[in-house]
Amino acid sequence: MKLVHDPIHGYIELDEFTRRLVDTPEFQRLRRITQLGFAFLAYPSARHTRFEHSLGTFHLAKKIRTHNPEIEEGALYAALLHDIGHYPFSHTLEGLYPRHEENTLWVIENGSVGDVIRENYSTQEFKKLLKHPIVSGDIDADRMDYLVRDAYYTGAAYGVVDLERLVRNLNFDGKMLVVEEKGIMAAQNLLLSRAMMYPTVYFHHTAKIAEAMLRKAVELEETPLEEIRLMDEIDLVSRLRSSEKREVRELIRAIDDRRLYKRAYCSNKELDEKAVSELEEALQDEFGHSALLDYPPKPKYEERNAFVRIGGETKRLSEVSPLVRSLVEMKDVYWRWCIYAREEARDEVKHFIGRFF
Amino acid sequence: MKLVHDPIHGYIELDEFTRRLVDTPEFQRLRRITQLGFAFLAYPSARHTRFEHSLGTFHLAKKIRTHNPEIEEGALYAALLHDIGHYPFSHTLEGLYPRHEENTLWVIENGSVGDVIRENYSTQEFKKLLKHPIVSGDIDADRMDYLVRDAYYTGAAYGVVDLERLVRNLNFDGKMLVVEEKGIMAAQNLLLSRAMMYPTVYFHHTAKIAEAMLRKAVELEETPLEEIRLMDEIDLVSRLRSSEKREVRELIRAIDDRRLYKRAYCSNKELDEKAVSELEEALQDEFGHSALLDYPPKPKYEERNAFVRIGGETKRLSEVSPLVRSLVEMKDVYWRWCIYAREEARDEVKHFIGRFF
Amino acid sequence: MKLVHDPIHGYIELDEFTRRLVDTPEFQRLRRITQLGFAFLAYPSARHTRFEHSLGTFHLAKKIRTHNPEIEEGALYAALLHDIGHYPFSHTLEGLYPRHEENTLWVIENGSVGDVIRENYSTQEFKKLLKHPIVSGDIDADRMDYLVRDAYYTGAAYGVVDLERLVRNLNFDGKMLVVEEKGIMAAQNLLLSRAMMYPTVYFHHTAKIAEAMLRKAVELEETPLEEIRLMDEIDLVSRLRSSEKREVRELIRAIDDRRLYKRAYCSNKELDEKAVSELEEALQDEFGHSALLDYPPKPKYEERNAFVRIGGETKRLSEVSPLVRSLVEMKDVYWRWCIYAREEARDEVKHFIGRFF
Amino acid sequence: MKLVHDPIHGYIELDEFTRRLVDTPEFQRLRRITQLGFAFLAYPSARHTRFEHSLGTFHLAKKIRTHNPEIEEGALYAALLHDIGHYPFSHTLEGLYPRHEENTLWVIENGSVGDVIRENYSTQEFKKLLKHPIVSGDIDADRMDYLVRDAYYTGAAYGVVDLERLVRNLNFDGKMLVVEEKGIMAAQNLLLSRAMMYPTVYFHHTAKIAEAMLRKAVELEETPLEEIRLMDEIDLVSRLRSSEKREVRELIRAIDDRRLYKRAYCSNKELDEKAVSELEEALQDEFGHSALLDYPPKPKYEERNAFVRIGGETKRLSEVSPLVRSLVEMKDVYWRWCIYAREEARDEVKHFIGRFF
Repeated sequence: MKLVHDPIHGYIELDEFTRRLVDTPEFQRLRRITQLGFAFLAYPSARHTRFEHSLGTFHLAKKIRTHNPEIEEGALYAALLHDIGHYPFSHTLEGLYPRHEENTLWVIENGSVGDVIRENYSTQEFKKLLKHPIVSGDIDADRMDYLVRDAYYTGAAYGVVDLERLVRNLNFDGKMLVVEEKGIMAAQNLLLSRAMMYPTVYFHHTAKIAEAMLRKAVELEETPLEEIRLMDEIDLVSRLRSSEKREVRELIRAIDDRRLYKRAYCSNKELDEKAVSELEEALQDEFGHSALLDYPPKPKYEERNAFVRIGGETKRLSEVSPLVRSLVEMKDVYWRWCIYAREEARDEVKHFIGRFF
Repeated sequence: MKLVHDPIHGYIELDEFTRRLVDTPEFQRLRRITQLGFAFLAYPSARHTRFEHSLGTFHLAKKIRTHNPEIEEGALYAALLHDIGHYPFSHTLEGLYPRHEENTLWVIENGSVGDVIRENYSTQEFKKLLKHPIVSGDIDADRMDYLVRDAYYTGAAYGVVDLERLVRNLNFDGKMLVVEEKGIMAAQNLLLSRAMMYPTVYFHHTAKIAEAMLRKAVELEETPLEEIRLMDEIDLVSRLRSSEKREVRELIRAIDDRRLYKRAYCSNKELDEKAVSELEEALQDEFGHSALLDYPPKPKYEERNAFVRIGGETKRLSEVSPLVRSLVEMKDVYWRWCIYAREEARDEVKHFIGRFF
Repeated sequence: MKLVHDPIHGYIELDEFTRRLVDTPEFQRLRRITQLGFAFLAYPSARHTRFEHSLGTFHLAKKIRTHNPEIEEGALYAALLHDIGHYPFSHTLEGLYPRHEENTLWVIENGSVGDVIRENYSTQEFKKLLKHPIVSGDIDADRMDYLVRDAYYTGAAYGVVDLERLVRNLNFDGKMLVVEEKGIMAAQNLLLSRAMMYPTVYFHHTAKIAEAMLRKAVELEETPLEEIRLMDEIDLVSRLRSSEKREVRELIRAIDDRRLYKRAYCSNKELDEKAVSELEEALQDEFGHSALLDYPPKPKYEERNAFVRIGGETKRLSEVSPLVRSLVEMKDVYWRWCIYAREEARDEVKHFIGRFF
Repeated sequence: MKLVHDPIHGYIELDEFTRRLVDTPEFQRLRRITQLGFAFLAYPSARHTRFEHSLGTFHLAKKIRTHNPEIEEGALYAALLHDIGHYPFSHTLEGLYPRHEENTLWVIENGSVGDVIRENYSTQEFKKLLKHPIVSGDIDADRMDYLVRDAYYTGAAYGVVDLERLVRNLNFDGKMLVVEEKGIMAAQNLLLSRAMMYPTVYFHHTAKIAEAMLRKAVELEETPLEEIRLMDEIDLVSRLRSSEKREVRELIRAIDDRRLYKRAYCSNKELDEKAVSELEEALQDEFGHSALLDYPPKPKYEERNAFVRIGGETKRLSEVSPLVRSLVEMKDVYWRWCIYAREEARDEVKHFIGRFF
């Protein structure tokens, strides 16, 4: 039994099989994948990585399973490995490459961590385990860990959740994790905390700008998927720094030195797909990499699948909680798209945009 | 300059005038008035008192004033003394006697703390200061202190608020405290935290039952207002323990030993005033002090008066925040009235109630 | 299984037998015995009670036992009840009455809590359990709980200990709890923290003065042991407030209003027993209750019995740790006795003392 | 005024001049210099960087100056920049290159951060400011920040210090910072905490092994000082990964994958300089980079220069505190040197060492 010291959970116990998974190069790579991408440019202390988060998710999954022994053990390893496919700077590059969940499957199939897994589970079995509600539900070990962890490392007050109460009141009914009556307030708090972390931390405009800049650099560099799959942040950044393309070098140097683009235009008006790509092209033609469109997808009502047990009945949490119902509206309030531009080009971009809107 | 050590705020500085206010018997009495009444029966660690809370409120008011030097100094002393009229066990006895705000005025007029105040402020001036938005608004030093403090002492995760961000973003416009744009999320969080503390801590049924029991004991004891005004909890409890009435002694002994009444009936159906008093009388006639009706007032939409500054305009927070709008609904969800009964009488009471509903 | 929410340990689980012990009047009385006596006059937030501490000690004992299943279950109940004999304001009155450990035995023998105990243990067996190293060693569940708890409630930074590391590295060898190598630093930290809490919190002069004043009031009141045994703080204070003796009423009123005596003279020069009682008498003759001698016992080297396992050998921690060895010296540095006097009498007392030293 | 959010200090305020220093490439580089080198291999959460620590040190220095307005303002910028010369992985490479303090001078002289400084201070003046006791004493802003920060990020309980008490009780006498009587316990605690962090965190054997491996890789790579001066960790690691030397690539890959060398031999026996280099050569000849000697300097009594004010006299803290005196001894207890070896070579190395000791 190996113990890992963690400021969030105290000590995390790793049994022998888990330890072997952790000791693979693919899992160790997570030490070099920042949990929150470029959030550290706004919250300098947010330097935690997918490594700690993965251990924490495993730990919480194990605690949930203590109260629900009928959950299969394999779900714990799925909890441990659910993020193993993340690219450098976490979600930043997901617009350019397949979502990290797909890359996770690729890593399991092709990495040495998959060899360890296959001593006990077929690839098919494990793919199914990765969808287990303990790690891919609306109230699951993954969210529970990252919210509390992100709050701790950013110093934001919004991610504080009574994990123990929630864990003790999650009941696996064979298909999903249902929150018992005594855990409803903690569950509401989890979803609310998440909703408050989005605008303040996850979508902080400073981080969004740096992410758009990095995305553009990687796009220009045309790094093929095969190479990006197992890159860590050192690989990616050093490659961009030594790129043959001046624009790429400029972009990464600007990120390194925190000379970030500025918001030239922001709007909460929805555009259809065609309008988005036309705008993107127009900007590209006129300004090259000096102006970047960041049009994030409209938020979805992701909290629909949180279920609670009330008076003997299983209901959607959104059905019984006015607070949770208000979250969709809240997301709308905070959603918007922006055009970022190099400081010197900002006025020109503003002017140019005036023609469209 | 005197320093008081406080786990919430670090050090609280008391200037000479404040120190003299603190050193009066009326203020020292607050050390013996529990902040949360009988919440400690559900959260054993919630033993903090109005004393610490009053110092903390003063401290936060001072910080708000640092950012808004046009606030008059007297408002700080109002913050310090706003709770000086609380009766034993805080809000518990407010049904039987005038609200604590009225008693605060009485104490200022009659206590030695008032003599100190009147060195600098007339009673009339000070009465007005007690209504200053810094201590009697929807987002004020009072709420900011008690939420964070109550969370710390109960261990509940719901009252965690980024006080510094809020304080730095409160702007006094001459009439009220308006939240600047950068503080909106923290302000929402304050109101949400409060809404979540209500059902979990402030209205925890265990505390509510003990409060109803104490109220009945005090009612039976017929302690006159003049005596209750400056009683501390030691005075009150020892008086009830040595009451000449057996029922009073029984009730306080049951509270002391935590042999609490049980919920015999609860409902969220509204009753009109007449129905409430008829029910109360019927219970009294049939069961004496063995059955207690606890019909709390329907929650009001108290958050209406939180104002924010957005894009140069002052708006109600409820106007811009779907989360805050949902709070009224939330309160409805949690509101209910109950009949508590001695364990041995519970079945009989249930049966009896069946005749009414 | 009942759960108690606690800010230190999260949730404390009470099995049925424990719950019945907790539900006795003697245990509930601990809710009205302040953990730190009058420390709240210096640290206003230190309002926690022996009740929470007793539950916390039980909880830690249970965790230690998880790693050492050979420890008998009864030791857990001893951990729960080890403080049940504390008098009002904890150690304050121990100079006037037998030590609280003796009163604990009396309560077990005579209280209803003893009846519950005797369903499973004879009084003799239980007396032995009360000396179990899990609750009466130099590194035990009692100290571990109170240090961390006192630090939390006072806000002092000195009592922070890595409880989990310590718990995981305590090994019961059949006779005592031995600290494994990996826990040595945490064990040193526990003893150091305690040593630093003494002068800053436990022996804070404000608390010591109030304690001396209360002791004098109780002495003058001549409350017999039989009555004090089961008194709570409400009983004692209300009795003193309504004493027939003016001096007693004056003393308790001064404590209530925090009009404390001042230090008239302090010294670290040791006196023999005779000198102490002569000084006490002289003061009594000259000043009555207006001057109080507080001559605390010289500190003992209590840390002698902390044992560690190093390289296969069991050694005294003091043998391997220079830090722990320095603790005795440190205590000497901070030890001293004082004479406290009513403010108006201070100069006279100083003058009077000048004749002796 | 720019605000930076920090989990340790809440908000850190940056005035315009400070902001311009922070916005230089040399200061932004600190975001990519891990505060604790490879400690994250033992404490995965210890991912904080010299960037946050530098801001925190600046913040504390400013607070100390609030209480000591006679301290020159320039000392604050020295506090901000005191670590700007750190090489990748902080202290790791200091054996191969000049100490980081020298590199700090070089950066000030040659970097754009120096240009900003020279708007207000000559290089000579600033060199002197870098030795100001506020940032280079035994009790200074630097230590105060890193201890509390390292404790927060590792989760270790040993670095908890009452910063506010200490700050309020530091008095600058024109030459040095002297601790006032009320701050002595906090000062002792600072030095003790540091002493306890050494063996548990700073000198954790896992980190020491990785550091020795990196040192060897850099030594083999023969990176010239001119290049290392301004490298960040990305530069260094990517250079080692793409080295032309197989041994270098092996070493860095092993660190990345956490396939660390093992302790083959450890001893607390002192060796003279000659013996050390002979041993090093012998190992090199026999095992090449497969065996590494790590002979750290014997600890010095660094706490000598902490001064306190007691009864009107300035004394060394070590003179009045037995605890602080015991720290030297403690360091001796934990000091030792080791030989680390590739797992496969360990037995052979052990055997080989047997010939020497």
